[in-house]
Amino acid sequence: MTKINVKKFGGTSVGSFERIEAVADAIARAHHEGERQVLVLSAMAGETNRLYAMAANIDPVASARELDMLVTAGEQVSIALMAMALERRGIKARSLLGSQVKIRTNNQFGRASIELVETNGLIGLLDAGVVPVIAGFQGVDGEGNITTLGRGGSDTTAVAVAAALNAAECQIFTDVCGVFTTDPNIDPNAQKLDSISFEAMYEMARQGAKVLHPDSVACARRHGVVLRVLSSFEPGSGTLIRFDEPDHTVSGIVGIAVSRGQGLVSVSGVVDNPPAEVALFKTLADACVDTDLVAQQPSERMLSFSLAQAEVNKVLALIDTLTGAHALGAVNYETELAKVSLISTGKPVMAELAARVTELLAAQNIRVRLVSTAEIKLSVMIDEKDLQQAVRSLHRAFNLNKV
Amino acid sequence: MTKINVKKFGGTSVGSFERIEAVADAIARAHHEGERQVLVLSAMAGETNRLYAMAANIDPVASARELDMLVTAGEQVSIALMAMALERRGIKARSLLGSQVKIRTNNQFGRASIELVETNGLIGLLDAGVVPVIAGFQGVDGEGNITTLGRGGSDTTAVAVAAALNAAECQIFTDVCGVFTTDPNIDPNAQKLDSISFEAMYEMARQGAKVLHPDSVACARRHGVVLRVLSSFEPGSGTLIRFDEPDHTVSGIVGIAVSRGQGLVSVSGVVDNPPAEVALFKTLADACVDTDLVAQQPSERMLSFSLAQAEVNKVLALIDTLTGAHALGAVNYETELAKVSLISTGKPVMAELAARVTELLAAQNIRVRLVSTAEIKLSVMIDEKDLQQAVRSLHRAFNLNKV
Repeated sequence: MTKINVKKFGGTSVGSFERIEAVADAIARAHHEGERQVLVLSAMAGETNRLYAMAANIDPVASARELDMLVTAGEQVSIALMAMALERRGIKARSLLGSQVKIRTNNQFGRASIELVETNGLIGLLDAGVVPVIAGFQGVDGEGNITTLGRGGSDTTAVAVAAALNAAECQIFTDVCGVFTTDPNIDPNAQKLDSISFEAMYEMARQGAKVLHPDSVACARRHGVVLRVLSSFEPGSGTLIRFDEPDHTVSGIVGIAVSRGQGLVSVSGVVDNPPAEVALFKTLADACVDTDLVAQQPSERMLSFSLAQAEVNKVLALIDTLTGAHALGAVNYETELAKVSLISTGKPVMAELAARVTELLAAQNIRVRLVSTAEIKLSVMIDEKDLQQAVRSLHRAFNLNKV
Repeated sequence: MTKINVKKFGGTSVGSFERIEAVADAIARAHHEGERQVLVLSAMAGETNRLYAMAANIDPVASARELDMLVTAGEQVSIALMAMALERRGIKARSLLGSQVKIRTNNQFGRASIELVETNGLIGLLDAGVVPVIAGFQGVDGEGNITTLGRGGSDTTAVAVAAALNAAECQIFTDVCGVFTTDPNIDPNAQKLDSISFEAMYEMARQGAKVLHPDSVACARRHGVVLRVLSSFEPGSGTLIRFDEPDHTVSGIVGIAVSRGQGLVSVSGVVDNPPAEVALFKTLADACVDTDLVAQQPSERMLSFSLAQAEVNKVLALIDTLTGAHALGAVNYETELAKVSLISTGKPVMAELAARVTELLAAQNIRVRLVSTAEIKLSVMIDEKDLQQAVRSLHRAFNLNKV
């Protein structure tokens, strides 16, 4: 029995009639070569945002159930069009909604988790030579309500379907030709990686590499699904995300991930004041603020944390509600910062790495606001204006440039 | 237990955010007055055509299954937006797809017939004070495929839901305030009818009155569903379609229906030539040509039939394929014709009615191409250019004008 490949195409890959036709051509070629394929599609580029905007026009705080009902119409259109394009090429195809596959989720509308993917129907179709074309991002709860998946969206659908079908590969087709050592828009010396370990890929995704969502990487690792990132615009074998062996690098650094639009909030009077610290983090967690790097400066009893710049005002207001009860000190904040993260292979001595990075940046008068390390990554916060210079110099220094 | 009203809103009634808000206001008012309401919605005006056009771009002969998958996304959007608009007004609402209600149909994609409407879920929602907002035009077959209904579309959904729920009324909200004695755009003296019998309404619809599709009228009659046609733009009690009593009219004529864009094809050598006549009608039926009025002139062995003008060229080509085998004679055709039909209450003596109508039109130099009668209607084919004059004079002569 030929192994199955699950192929996920994102919004830009099905964003126009021309793109749909191009994808259908590629699927038809592979089909004629005997490949067993299951497609998972996003909505056409822009469509999901258009639908959310319609909802906002009716009710800016519309219920999550109705939002899910609304936006899942987007994938319904793209899968039907793709099935038509395949059928026009003489390929048997069948569009399938999440509810038709039976992608069962919990009932957390807008951020549902997949509990089960029924495979009998899909296997029946594959055995009959039919290409299933599945709507990504959507599922159905135990009562038949339509749900949408949380972060990761259609990638998560593809991974879950691949896991359920025990697919050979889960191929994520996107608008770049693979995973790069860093963002090629920031450093033209960025190299496409032929392969990368799951651990490094996960950390790259977490630290800002947009090609895959960290949750879908984690989901793939958990279920033993081999991922591959490929371009839907040009041929190539893309980047394989490997289970089996560690990354091979000259410098010990696999890649540099970048995250713009960061902010930094500092609150004094928190360190050594456990009730205040607990209250602060609990308040932030309740408001779903995703704080990232956290650093303490005991000398000033100051606690600093990074977060998305867009969240800064909300967080300042939240902290304001705590100052009375907890005798917090001065609150400072900065915006227009960027986070640059080096992802390592194995576990380097972080203190050494930190010293090297800060020295390198200091030599170029790039001010480092915060340094934070974790098992296989080191992040620094710098001014956004210094981003390109910092990335290029680190990329060169750690031997990631094209040779 | 308060009786239920099923309310169907067509594309123009939900064609913009403003229209959706206006409908939601009206539903909220009725809800607060204690009315138990079930909504059935069409897609926003233009949306279904937009989706069909997308399909045509991919494949002009796309499979009916995939077309149904595609276009049903339209109603999915309108029901979600309406449910949001109701929830914003503090009304509990729940959008429901055909597959979620379980509007079971056969598997004739593109023209499916409803076999069953599950009511348990709907009644549960109503009992919980929730307004169900159902996607019209769509159902689900026994294998879970999405289907669309044939002619009549969302009206048929509304009638089927009303029948299943034993609703007090099935109210069809549209962009006119009811059923008129004739098209008010053709004759400003047209009067809105407060009520009309099912028989007359069915014939009005069949002969061109666009406010209701004849199939949904027939469906309502079959299931004993009381219909009412109302405007979604202005208040009023609309037109009730009655079961109980015949129409009351001064002249015996209830209304005048009009159908433009008609053609007439005449074939000689057919009459008294049964194999040719059978072959002709079989060929037309196989090609799904809807012939309407049929007349024979034995003197020239000529058979004439009316049809939509847009079908004329196709039909001429079909007849061409028969001439060899069946020694057909000359074929003639005319276009730019209109059909004017008088709908009567009870069963008039048709010969008398025909004489009166042709005399009246002849007196105005309006040429009558064909006269055809059935139980409660008389139709004449005239030149489309004479339409307004003919309708106005008949409307006046049969005492239908406003007093």
